[in-house]
Amino acid sequence: MSDVIRVSEIFGPTIQGEGALIGVPTVFVRTGGCDYRCVWCDSLHAVDSEYRHTWAPMRAGAVMDEVRRLSGGVPLTVTLSGGNPAIQPLGDLIALGRAEGYGFAMETQGSVARDWFSQLDMLVLSPKPPSSGMQTDWTLLQDCIDAAAGVRTVLKIVVFDEADFAYARDVAARHPGLPVYLQPGNHTPPPPEDDTATVDQDGIDARMRWLVDRVIAGRWHGATVLPQLHVMLWGNKRGV
Amino acid sequence: MSDVIRVSEIFGPTIQGEGALIGVPTVFVRTGGCDYRCVWCDSLHAVDSEYRHTWAPMRAGAVMDEVRRLSGGVPLTVTLSGGNPAIQPLGDLIALGRAEGYGFAMETQGSVARDWFSQLDMLVLSPKPPSSGMQTDWTLLQDCIDAAAGVRTVLKIVVFDEADFAYARDVAARHPGLPVYLQPGNHTPPPPEDDTATVDQDGIDARMRWLVDRVIAGRWHGATVLPQLHVMLWGNKRGV
Repeated sequence: MSDVIRVSEIFGPTIQGEGALIGVPTVFVRTGGCDYRCVWCDSLHAVDSEYRHTWAPMRAGAVMDEVRRLSGGVPLTVTLSGGNPAIQPLGDLIALGRAEGYGFAMETQGSVARDWFSQLDMLVLSPKPPSSGMQTDWTLLQDCIDAAAGVRTVLKIVVFDEADFAYARDVAARHPGLPVYLQPGNHTPPPPEDDTATVDQDGIDARMRWLVDRVIAGRWHGATVLPQLHVMLWGNKRGV
Repeated sequence: MSDVIRVSEIFGPTIQGEGALIGVPTVFVRTGGCDYRCVWCDSLHAVDSEYRHTWAPMRAGAVMDEVRRLSGGVPLTVTLSGGNPAIQPLGDLIALGRAEGYGFAMETQGSVARDWFSQLDMLVLSPKPPSSGMQTDWTLLQDCIDAAAGVRTVLKIVVFDEADFAYARDVAARHPGLPVYLQPGNHTPPPPEDDTATVDQDGIDARMRWLVDRVIAGRWHGATVLPQLHVMLWGNKRGV
């Protein structure tokens, strides 16, 4: 009997809206609970323990049943997100899915390493920049990279301002072998109980253009700059 | 002495706005002249012979000088676009650039194959769907794929409607080994002499959402769906 996974939501298929798999059809499995409290968190409903009552305890088989139902049994990439999915027992889910041809990409800040990272198809590490209010533990981040040896591992860093940009350059310099994806921050994240709240897309777009200019001016030709495409297309709406 | 290349414009660095390299810093070398006349062409200034007087005859060394100047001598990916760049003599340019560490991605409809395709880092084949008014010569498309043996080759297909979508599925079925990128068409392309003309971004976004829905409904989980990000961020403006 596998361990219980706390699940905030399972939705899709839709396209991945950001990072290395942007545009790829995927089902999201968003787990509940996080060891971080980023001030601009856009998924507080899966982070704040105030919403714990909305997180369903599910075993791996039940999660996979739902993924299979949503995808019509046609294998695709499953995105494990949160909260911090690394604090959940996801090894059995990955094993079950892979046996049926599903792939697994996981998004985590890199604060908790697990041996089952080695079974992923992609590990997206999103260490949090100064604007988040969080501190990066570089040893734990390295532990995550080591746990995913042989797995395609990339860095995705949210950038709000110059300090965040400098942080991103520092992270990249510490890990020259990892591809870097930069993403403009959303200063109008949805309140946990209102996903119809308005997004300041003009402001986000302006930050995206600034970030492109900043990367180009710095001749950082190895970085990839991408927006949150799902926010551009659907705003803060959930489940798309 | 290398052959003369007809150059419509060289600009950047900016980010690639579409397809497999979306978000990647790049300098564009847009050549003048095309064997196609797509009814919705968004680069008529580099296609229609009426604008031939704006195309500069340049040798490979001069093009590379400009690429080097724009990029500050820091190697990056050069995107060869058009018009149809395959009708230009680009082998020497690619050889010069690669010797300095630059990479080359080329975008072409796949109607003309050249032996120098084998020296590219990426070949993006964009066969044109029914809405373009053009006909695909499948033998020539295969010739292009064969010429790029060993090179990362992907398909990028613009989709306006159901007929285009069916065409895209047909192309993918003919070439199951090639990754497929789908892109919603822009029904408000810029007039060749006015890049400040307004784009119907709401209409394009609606088509993007329709295309995502269509791919998901068809369980086409291997396709990647991406918009023209540069149009979302900068409209029809050139040089960004």
